[in-house]
Amino acid sequence: MALNGLLNLLNVYKHRLHFQSQIALRKSYFSSCETIGSCRHGHSVTRGQGGFNNKLIPFQFHPRLGWPVLSTIRASSTVALTSSRLSSLNRGPFSVVSDQDIQYFNKVLQGRVITDRDELETHNTDWLKTVRGNSQVLLRPKTTEEVSAIVKYCYDRHLAVTPQGGNTGLVGGSVPVFDEVIISTQLMNNIISLDPVSGALVCQAGCVLETLDNHVQDHGLTMPLDLGAKGSCHIGGNVATNAGGIRLLRYGSLHGSVLGLEAVLPDGEIMDCLTPLRKDNTGYDLKQLFIGSEGTLGIITKVSILCPQKPRAVCVALLGCENFQKVLDIFVSCKSFLGEIMSAFEFMDSQAMELVKENLSLISPLEKYPFYVLVECSGSDGNHDEEKLTRMLQAVMDSGAALDGTVATDSTKIYNIWSLRESCASALLKDGYNYKYDVSLPLDHFYTLAEEMRERVKNHAIRTVAYGHVGDGNLHLNFTTAKYCPATMALIEPFIYDWVARHRGSVSAEHGLGLKKRQFIYHSKTPSAVALMATIKKAVDPRGIMNPYKVLPENIKTENDSSLDDREKM
Amino acid sequence: MALNGLLNLLNVYKHRLHFQSQIALRKSYFSSCETIGSCRHGHSVTRGQGGFNNKLIPFQFHPRLGWPVLSTIRASSTVALTSSRLSSLNRGPFSVVSDQDIQYFNKVLQGRVITDRDELETHNTDWLKTVRGNSQVLLRPKTTEEVSAIVKYCYDRHLAVTPQGGNTGLVGGSVPVFDEVIISTQLMNNIISLDPVSGALVCQAGCVLETLDNHVQDHGLTMPLDLGAKGSCHIGGNVATNAGGIRLLRYGSLHGSVLGLEAVLPDGEIMDCLTPLRKDNTGYDLKQLFIGSEGTLGIITKVSILCPQKPRAVCVALLGCENFQKVLDIFVSCKSFLGEIMSAFEFMDSQAMELVKENLSLISPLEKYPFYVLVECSGSDGNHDEEKLTRMLQAVMDSGAALDGTVATDSTKIYNIWSLRESCASALLKDGYNYKYDVSLPLDHFYTLAEEMRERVKNHAIRTVAYGHVGDGNLHLNFTTAKYCPATMALIEPFIYDWVARHRGSVSAEHGLGLKKRQFIYHSKTPSAVALMATIKKAVDPRGIMNPYKVLPENIKTENDSSLDDREKM
Repeated sequence: MALNGLLNLLNVYKHRLHFQSQIALRKSYFSSCETIGSCRHGHSVTRGQGGFNNKLIPFQFHPRLGWPVLSTIRASSTVALTSSRLSSLNRGPFSVVSDQDIQYFNKVLQGRVITDRDELETHNTDWLKTVRGNSQVLLRPKTTEEVSAIVKYCYDRHLAVTPQGGNTGLVGGSVPVFDEVIISTQLMNNIISLDPVSGALVCQAGCVLETLDNHVQDHGLTMPLDLGAKGSCHIGGNVATNAGGIRLLRYGSLHGSVLGLEAVLPDGEIMDCLTPLRKDNTGYDLKQLFIGSEGTLGIITKVSILCPQKPRAVCVALLGCENFQKVLDIFVSCKSFLGEIMSAFEFMDSQAMELVKENLSLISPLEKYPFYVLVECSGSDGNHDEEKLTRMLQAVMDSGAALDGTVATDSTKIYNIWSLRESCASALLKDGYNYKYDVSLPLDHFYTLAEEMRERVKNHAIRTVAYGHVGDGNLHLNFTTAKYCPATMALIEPFIYDWVARHRGSVSAEHGLGLKKRQFIYHSKTPSAVALMATIKKAVDPRGIMNPYKVLPENIKTENDSSLDDREKM
Repeated sequence: MALNGLLNLLNVYKHRLHFQSQIALRKSYFSSCETIGSCRHGHSVTRGQGGFNNKLIPFQFHPRLGWPVLSTIRASSTVALTSSRLSSLNRGPFSVVSDQDIQYFNKVLQGRVITDRDELETHNTDWLKTVRGNSQVLLRPKTTEEVSAIVKYCYDRHLAVTPQGGNTGLVGGSVPVFDEVIISTQLMNNIISLDPVSGALVCQAGCVLETLDNHVQDHGLTMPLDLGAKGSCHIGGNVATNAGGIRLLRYGSLHGSVLGLEAVLPDGEIMDCLTPLRKDNTGYDLKQLFIGSEGTLGIITKVSILCPQKPRAVCVALLGCENFQKVLDIFVSCKSFLGEIMSAFEFMDSQAMELVKENLSLISPLEKYPFYVLVECSGSDGNHDEEKLTRMLQAVMDSGAALDGTVATDSTKIYNIWSLRESCASALLKDGYNYKYDVSLPLDHFYTLAEEMRERVKNHAIRTVAYGHVGDGNLHLNFTTAKYCPATMALIEPFIYDWVARHRGSVSAEHGLGLKKRQFIYHSKTPSAVALMATIKKAVDPRGIMNPYKVLPENIKTENDSSLDDREKM
């Protein structure tokens, strides 16, 4: 049964792959599941059992998140300490927290210093419960000045620090590896200002994304990003990890939306670049460096972000077509006919549609086609949007790009169409083991990867399923087997990562590198780029106290150095 | 007459303000002008005479550019050498170019090494002809590898370098100050690829913006930025200076549009971050550091940029209203009713409208109102856009936000309405001296500056005229006198810069700092932010060879250091 496969996996990789096995494991630890209902957004939530470290554990799965939300009954203590798992990773030359340090923190934070082991456990363990640190103290500042005081103290004392937001990251970036001091933004949750005219929102870093979205919606605005984890993730963490999400096609990345930020640097200095201005060309745009640096350059304490107008209407079309080239043809037509109103362009291949029909009994409004396209429009006039969408549909059907299509404007039909696409992840679980990949690729190679992998894996998988966000070049490629199969895994990895690297794709489209993926950085970045990152890290954080062991690899290659193989370093 | 005022200005500021006087001078050196025709975009072009360094010189003026395009008959040699003008500025500890160096350059570049004094003159002098370097050699590489080789050589030899694109900058950032080696991207003008599906354009840094725009338009796309200097500016320079322009409201800044770039670092290393991907979270987003760093961290050699769909239709409305609050009310309505199709939101106050009517005999389609709003929509369906615009107009008139309004959909009427707004700059010249300010301000303080300044300046100016891009918080504030008046100037500066700083505005909305404005950096950035910039500069360019004397001020303040007054340092 499924668990045997998991044990095989652990045995095979135990000695030579360290936590790469955890990544693979994360992708494949489900043995049974069923749909138990839907979340407040209407997404179906699946529950079941899966194996991990030889334990059978319950989980819940939300399709938007793409990863299992493990039930709380699973104790954090079942998660192995990262430091013991990664025996080759040495603790940095940092001091150990002393009683005197705790006294100082208590003086500054007046009681907001947590040393209780049970409470610490939650903050030491990541959301996926795959990595666990051993921090002895969690600090809960309320103000930037408090953050500055404690970080300055840590810097002077050579104490390592892990900044933590909502702790919803997927790559182990937001929890300590050893005994780093955790500085949480949990109590830094004040909304400072919202200019409903310009749309500039200014708030503390610990504001929960959903809270902010509700707040700005009251003023006819919307947050420029939306994530599955919106109910618990912090805006500071979103910015620190350059979170992507489903609104990226329309509103672009946080590098464009974030107007300014305030951060506490590793030496405790406050860097105030909290402008609400759209235009400001006075010196280097420092905030950009902090967006996506995953807390390794400082702690973001405040954010200024541009909120676009909330769309008044949404409509959706589902199209069927003959091959992937037609999907791209339709994308071009959508850009032309829909232009400014297109807010999503997703695709599924026939295997993906068969999957949700077979495993979840969903009904497609279309006949069977090799490929399906889901287009969403949102704009300020529903009738106009529907008219444009219908016209686009007519054009792509006349040209033969689409073989069939349907348009939905009422919320039930829109929900049903979105369910087909959004249920893919949970439907995959019903097959057994899932081998999941989330990569960015240029569009001309986008589906070729799926074709080559399908040919390569052949009957070593139940199915090879591809779907994803064509609009922003983000492919979800999945393989399933009844139970974990090392032979299948060996066919997939490292081939798939090398293929992505060869085609100038990204091995981490939006999750970041954190602790778990940092050794993969050379698959997507050149040695000179990584070396420059290391130079900047060294300049900004000469003592290396800020979120150590994250983002940058343990060993920095030189341009001509091919001696280090990433996989061998795991 | 006007020239006497100019001479007064020079005398007043000569000893204590160095080239701040040049900035003021640039704002006020026109003595007479007339409209001579229109450019290919239909903008009226003005010509006339102005004074500079005691010379009467001819100029041409293009309203989109906002600055005079001096006629070519004016010889560069009339421009004083920056090094002699800025006597307090010391040359850095760099080597002097030797014959051996020239030999090396010739070996690498095979004849593309310019030492001819006349040809050098153009590249030593800025576009406004206000600053002039004394470089002895101009290098014209064609490839990244050539740039790398010559930069590495310069680094090893401690030779300072000035990267140069189209040399259209307004702050003296693209020409040498002393004898820096000029490395021009002029011959690096290959378009490498355009993915018409994703919209990702990849090209060399020396491609002219207009050439690129024409190229992508053939594929139904548009460049995400548009500038008056588009006919000669290079995309590499646009990216290096984070150029803004008139499409910013719609498509955002280059921090969002630039997908990737390749740059040669100060030590000659090639940093290849030339991805065409929209999503890539593998390490620090290094490209962001180069966007807006004005060539001080390296030479951008290739750019990957996301081109949006070219709109199919454009329509424009002109509205009259009672006060500036109503302008903001209309902006909110436009965001709501027009949403995704709004592509410009400009305002003029009554003095601005009177100005173009009186000085250029333009005819407004509206009666006289205290404020005017110009709204432009562009989208994929002209009828829809017009309908939305009409509906918005109805709503703002019903609510009393607008007192009158007109909509234009045919190109002549659109041109006439835009002319009112775009002719402001040239109309101002007819008054005599112009004192021009280009600042960013939060919208709640946006017009207050104009009101306070008008009250302050009172009858010391013919008029105080405000107009600008409300949509992106960019205010153009202008004062005119018949001839230069030191008393008026004393009322305006430094009060206006201090006011902008106090209200967290930016003293350089989009022009950058370059050489001329670098000492103003503390008006918009905190000492700790500037210190971090200096740290990064030092880390990336430890020998300081890359575009020295630009962006960062000569002396870096500490957080508590108030001993340096910017104005005293000029």
